[in-house]
Amino acid sequence: MLFKNITLIDENFEVKSNMYVGVFSDRIDYIGETEPEKDYGEAYDGSRKVLLPGFVNAHTHSPMTLLRGYAENLPLDRWLNEKVFPFEDRLNCERAYYGTMLSIAEMLACGTTSFSDMYFFTDGVMKAAIDAKAKLNYSRSIVSFDDTPLLENERVKEGICAAEKYHNTENGRIKVDMCLHAEYTNTLKTIEEFGEYTKGRGLINHIHLSETKLEHENCKQKYGKTPARLFYDAGVMDSPCLFAHCVWIEDSDIELFKEKGASVAHCSASNLKLGSGVCDTYKLMQNGINVAIGTDSASSNNSLDIIKEMYLAAILPKGIQGRADIVSPAEVLKMATRNGALAQGREDCGLIKEGFKADLCVIDLNKANMYPDFDVLNNLVYSASKADVVLTMVDGEVLYKDGEYKYIDVEKIGFECNRIVGEVVKELGV
Amino acid sequence: MLFKNITLIDENFEVKSNMYVGVFSDRIDYIGETEPEKDYGEAYDGSRKVLLPGFVNAHTHSPMTLLRGYAENLPLDRWLNEKVFPFEDRLNCERAYYGTMLSIAEMLACGTTSFSDMYFFTDGVMKAAIDAKAKLNYSRSIVSFDDTPLLENERVKEGICAAEKYHNTENGRIKVDMCLHAEYTNTLKTIEEFGEYTKGRGLINHIHLSETKLEHENCKQKYGKTPARLFYDAGVMDSPCLFAHCVWIEDSDIELFKEKGASVAHCSASNLKLGSGVCDTYKLMQNGINVAIGTDSASSNNSLDIIKEMYLAAILPKGIQGRADIVSPAEVLKMATRNGALAQGREDCGLIKEGFKADLCVIDLNKANMYPDFDVLNNLVYSASKADVVLTMVDGEVLYKDGEYKYIDVEKIGFECNRIVGEVVKELGV
Repeated sequence: MLFKNITLIDENFEVKSNMYVGVFSDRIDYIGETEPEKDYGEAYDGSRKVLLPGFVNAHTHSPMTLLRGYAENLPLDRWLNEKVFPFEDRLNCERAYYGTMLSIAEMLACGTTSFSDMYFFTDGVMKAAIDAKAKLNYSRSIVSFDDTPLLENERVKEGICAAEKYHNTENGRIKVDMCLHAEYTNTLKTIEEFGEYTKGRGLINHIHLSETKLEHENCKQKYGKTPARLFYDAGVMDSPCLFAHCVWIEDSDIELFKEKGASVAHCSASNLKLGSGVCDTYKLMQNGINVAIGTDSASSNNSLDIIKEMYLAAILPKGIQGRADIVSPAEVLKMATRNGALAQGREDCGLIKEGFKADLCVIDLNKANMYPDFDVLNNLVYSASKADVVLTMVDGEVLYKDGEYKYIDVEKIGFECNRIVGEVVKELGV
Repeated sequence: MLFKNITLIDENFEVKSNMYVGVFSDRIDYIGETEPEKDYGEAYDGSRKVLLPGFVNAHTHSPMTLLRGYAENLPLDRWLNEKVFPFEDRLNCERAYYGTMLSIAEMLACGTTSFSDMYFFTDGVMKAAIDAKAKLNYSRSIVSFDDTPLLENERVKEGICAAEKYHNTENGRIKVDMCLHAEYTNTLKTIEEFGEYTKGRGLINHIHLSETKLEHENCKQKYGKTPARLFYDAGVMDSPCLFAHCVWIEDSDIELFKEKGASVAHCSASNLKLGSGVCDTYKLMQNGINVAIGTDSASSNNSLDIIKEMYLAAILPKGIQGRADIVSPAEVLKMATRNGALAQGREDCGLIKEGFKADLCVIDLNKANMYPDFDVLNNLVYSASKADVVLTMVDGEVLYKDGEYKYIDVEKIGFECNRIVGEVVKELGV
């Protein structure tokens, strides 16, 4: 495909107008001010449109879209124990498949081209990602309630099996990360064995960290150290880490992140909605930490709208700290794209740059909310919505265009999701 | 028009499925579970769609959409003095007309059916509202820097003239409110004369109140009382009041609101983005105050997306107060509809109820983000976006449907807005 005469966000997150971008196979092959001689096939008229790197949703739980609207107005612990866990206990691979398909549909409509998922029912989630040609870093969530040896824990076995079966498959679209659900859902023995096992294997460790004050303080009381320090001491941070939430981390934790190059998945909406608090992303960024953006699940958000999430990430620090001058639009757009790709270990994603993967999205500027044209970058971060997304491309293939999906029938998937939740509710007798 | 087989939000903000709603002239004429015998003309298939009262944007400054993206990352005082005021000084009625048209287009696409505007260039704003058939409470912003008698202040004259010329015109769609810009932009003499003048005239007083800590504290230092108390003492609150922002109000101010029945226009996004803080809407609502929702201007937001604003109003109190159980979806939807209508003095608007004005919007449930169907109300508040708005009706007339406007050519309006801002920037030499 050849994007003609389009505005784009370049690799320095600066705006360039009247550009040509040629996509060959799964890569960005040409970027220039003039029309290339090479034939890139279908031409796309870029007038009043802007091409940006596809968004990366750095933390979600796709099958939980089945629970959207099911468990509302509860704090995290009650939300999990009274509503989420019993519901999840009724899921299976077939059910997880439809929940994941629905999530992928929603994310594509928001311009999201890659996501980091933490869940279970591996084969169901994977089948959806493969069917929809989505880009996914999947991790099998590990919890442990006793001191069963790590490699005898069924969840760990599933995670290892997932890595062996799926890592770097589908033209590299599918990657597998390792995962501890959190400190409070695992025994110290499991955490230590996990640190030892993952060390040197080159996989990312995706972990919930200091999401609530309760979790953070309980850990300090139990172990005399923060969750981050506990993971550090157990060797978990010797692998590249992606820590979700980090609402209650301390300055000393940030030092550990710096030392080990850990990434943070910032989930503004979920943290607000569950009453968990606000992560100090400004401080993290001041310390050079790679901060990406996640929606968390549709059960706690309740959407997977990364553009809304980007907006929150832009305005929330300003409001909380009383400083309108912190966190620039370019920084936030980078969080939602390049930083996410780096957090996923995808060096060749998240930028519009020759040779990089063609994971792209197009936003229409011929919308009332996108005029006037003072500053396209400001408009993208502060004024755009998913209603403005007109094209989403993954690995050079258009998966969503003008409201239509290439591989997903939303009405059918939605119907199946309604069927499934009807069955689950009946099984639970609620 | 007859909405057939549609889900709706009833006057108690409860969800009803498979309903019929007949619109005759500018009113909701029929609501029932069966198809009416009366002929309502065009039928609208409501399958997998939900009908709700149109949103009311209770505080904005429409022509300022011209400044979208122009003045970023500055706190309120610098934002106003260094960027906004010099720009506004170059505006005129023709320029304000196009800015307002662009704003109306954006609001209609978000399902907004009525808005409370505070600005100047009355005839420009009014012409846009009339051309677009929008519903508008307009107020001419009054500022005073010396003790010129109230009725000799040119701004006051324009405001009074606006009321005489436009109040209750266009089938009542246009109303005129009175307006003091704020305490800090007026002399005590003006405020007192304004209180005296407006008393008993039956018009609403629309005023910025305690938006920033600086403004609030300066007033206390200068007058020994809060801005709210100052307005109360000056008789300003003897008229129905709509106070925008109220971020820094105190408990004693809430008592005054209660006594006088004042409404609050809550502007989460603008208050965050300008670093002003967070209004405690939970406390206001606990005290029975009528809290409506406003976007503020596109210059400080930077969109007029009331659905995004509704989402913020739902999750922000939870996150700030650490309580996931406060502020329900029904309360928030009421804030964005009925409470706004009441703040505008429009008793027969903001509810789906027989005899009420047919100010309606339709949201498509056949979107990935709107499945499954556990709870339509939750999905509307927590999961919907403006991308799901498929119809907006004002006074029984469809003004927006499936991305098309009845009276607005967005491309043309956008072009004119770009022309205008180009001229202004040239005139300012920036």
